[in-house]
Amino acid sequence: MNVHEGNAVYNLTDSCVMPLTFQQLLSMDRDHDLDDVRMDYGTITGDPRLKKEILKMYRSAAEDNITFGQGCLQCSEMVMYTLLSPGDTVVTYTPSYQQFTDIPASIGCSVIQLKLYEEQGWQPLVSELEEVMQKPVRMVIINQPNNPTGSVFERAYLDRLISLCRKQGTWILCDEVYRGLYEEEISLSDLYEKCVCTSGLSKLYSLAGLRLGWIRGPREVIDLVNVRRDYSIISTGALTDTLALVALKNREKIIQRSLDIIEGCRREITEWLKHEARVSLVMPKYGTVSFPKYESRLSSSELAEGIQQKYGVFFVPGSCFDCEKHLRLTMTCPADTMREGLRLLSRYLDEADNS
Amino acid sequence: MNVHEGNAVYNLTDSCVMPLTFQQLLSMDRDHDLDDVRMDYGTITGDPRLKKEILKMYRSAAEDNITFGQGCLQCSEMVMYTLLSPGDTVVTYTPSYQQFTDIPASIGCSVIQLKLYEEQGWQPLVSELEEVMQKPVRMVIINQPNNPTGSVFERAYLDRLISLCRKQGTWILCDEVYRGLYEEEISLSDLYEKCVCTSGLSKLYSLAGLRLGWIRGPREVIDLVNVRRDYSIISTGALTDTLALVALKNREKIIQRSLDIIEGCRREITEWLKHEARVSLVMPKYGTVSFPKYESRLSSSELAEGIQQKYGVFFVPGSCFDCEKHLRLTMTCPADTMREGLRLLSRYLDEADNS
Repeated sequence: MNVHEGNAVYNLTDSCVMPLTFQQLLSMDRDHDLDDVRMDYGTITGDPRLKKEILKMYRSAAEDNITFGQGCLQCSEMVMYTLLSPGDTVVTYTPSYQQFTDIPASIGCSVIQLKLYEEQGWQPLVSELEEVMQKPVRMVIINQPNNPTGSVFERAYLDRLISLCRKQGTWILCDEVYRGLYEEEISLSDLYEKCVCTSGLSKLYSLAGLRLGWIRGPREVIDLVNVRRDYSIISTGALTDTLALVALKNREKIIQRSLDIIEGCRREITEWLKHEARVSLVMPKYGTVSFPKYESRLSSSELAEGIQQKYGVFFVPGSCFDCEKHLRLTMTCPADTMREGLRLLSRYLDEADNS
Repeated sequence: MNVHEGNAVYNLTDSCVMPLTFQQLLSMDRDHDLDDVRMDYGTITGDPRLKKEILKMYRSAAEDNITFGQGCLQCSEMVMYTLLSPGDTVVTYTPSYQQFTDIPASIGCSVIQLKLYEEQGWQPLVSELEEVMQKPVRMVIINQPNNPTGSVFERAYLDRLISLCRKQGTWILCDEVYRGLYEEEISLSDLYEKCVCTSGLSKLYSLAGLRLGWIRGPREVIDLVNVRRDYSIISTGALTDTLALVALKNREKIIQRSLDIIEGCRREITEWLKHEARVSLVMPKYGTVSFPKYESRLSSSELAEGIQQKYGVFFVPGSCFDCEKHLRLTMTCPADTMREGLRLLSRYLDEADNS
């Protein structure tokens, strides 16, 4: 993304809802005490007022179950480094975000990837899970809603997963950065006592620029992560904590804005699919991205590079998720950007396959 | 520090110059474009305008030699994880910051600590360096000016160190977060081609709350760190980059403020030492902290805990640096805080040793 994002005229692949400006964020709370904030480390383990707001997103947890990092990804990294050792077996899913596989592998873990089946609505198979969990598994890493498919595990699968993990004492690390558009989305950490969840303000809250993430987990994990933090980030800083508090106090307003944007995109995509027979999509109910499949002689990277060059439309190709003939499609851009970008995608497919 | 800092009435141990408030920072640059900053990731590898300002602190370097992290400490951590492997030999110095020893040890490196001798003005011995470098050393980690002593290596030692490292191809990681009060302080990365330097805005710039650090090093190291960042922090964010730019454009003003504060402390300490025979100090020329030695039956942690409890004076005890009968003494607080805190230290020593 680093190379191509800047040149995009139509960014049809971003997983963050269109960013707020600094002014838009501040205007949500006239009572903030930003001017007087001392630019120091702040409370080392995170502003207690911020923790209080975050606890509202979980059914049961105390302040000691929360700590912070520089974005959800870094939070997940800290959890992996804290709980994993060379030789451990880790189960992940594919397609999913590269970090979940690559960091355990770099630590020296043996990583088993279970498949999400598109024809099953991007669900995994219980039978495959049961098979891998016949041997000791240290950690299962999941991402709900999933990047890039937007899928969440069906309840029957989740129950089976938790019961198998409980039997072994297996940790679950669940990246929930896309959770929270709807009240019904339960955190996995409210269902399983050895689940560590991570999240942040980058995706649904349109505030990637704050670089604020958090971890919710059992006290003993949070304590270990806090020790690790003392050798690394120390804290997230008083400024970020103060601004994050403004955002979370206005959570409903920000989430409603995100829902409106996503709904607009969903309408454009649905309309376009009616007339675009070469593309099929398991339309996700949650999250901010989707993962359509297309028919063409072009590989996903040929398509993504070609259309960026010719029309300035930016897609992350399926090849980045080891899944050919797919593109990651955002649901977070302005509706007219979506409409025009999809029109150009159809045109590019026409031209490529008829030339 | 996490436990005790909050209760301190007289913080006589802080390594950061008294923090600026958000308003004080912003008032330095009426032309900033903060309101319109999009709260997104910003330029992934760091704002080019910010890199340009940072390059001014080095004699020769290009933008590709710079990348960013969340504070100097995290930058150093990323360098260690990038360049070190289990089994490597790493040379560090004592007393110094724990991170330099503990992270290599946690990676599985064999760590050799060389001593800084107080009676030599906190300098190491060339002979001891020559001895350890008879075997292969992967990395030498130094901190200039040093925390907690404020010392920097004498030029003869530095030259010998560089020549021994060059012969072997040994990396030097140099934490220079306390460098930059005076123009004469050369970066080690301007003297040795395999030196990676880290720094940040927390100490001399009074902006720990920005959590901005940077790495200056050879292109191949910066490229590797940038790949690592994609799995972790991604970026430092548009907001931090914008505010850091305000700070660095006003570098002279901020550094002059720090110099004034440090000078005020130095005067108070010098005056106090004239009448306090139980305490001796190698007064550092650079940096923000010093490391006085005291005579008492109390251990450093007994002294630090006792005086905090009785008089609210906060010191990091020498035991945190494996160096008994010492305290880390700041040079960054208001002069009257210093005066009163030192008066209470004398009184506490009286009471403790006469009871």
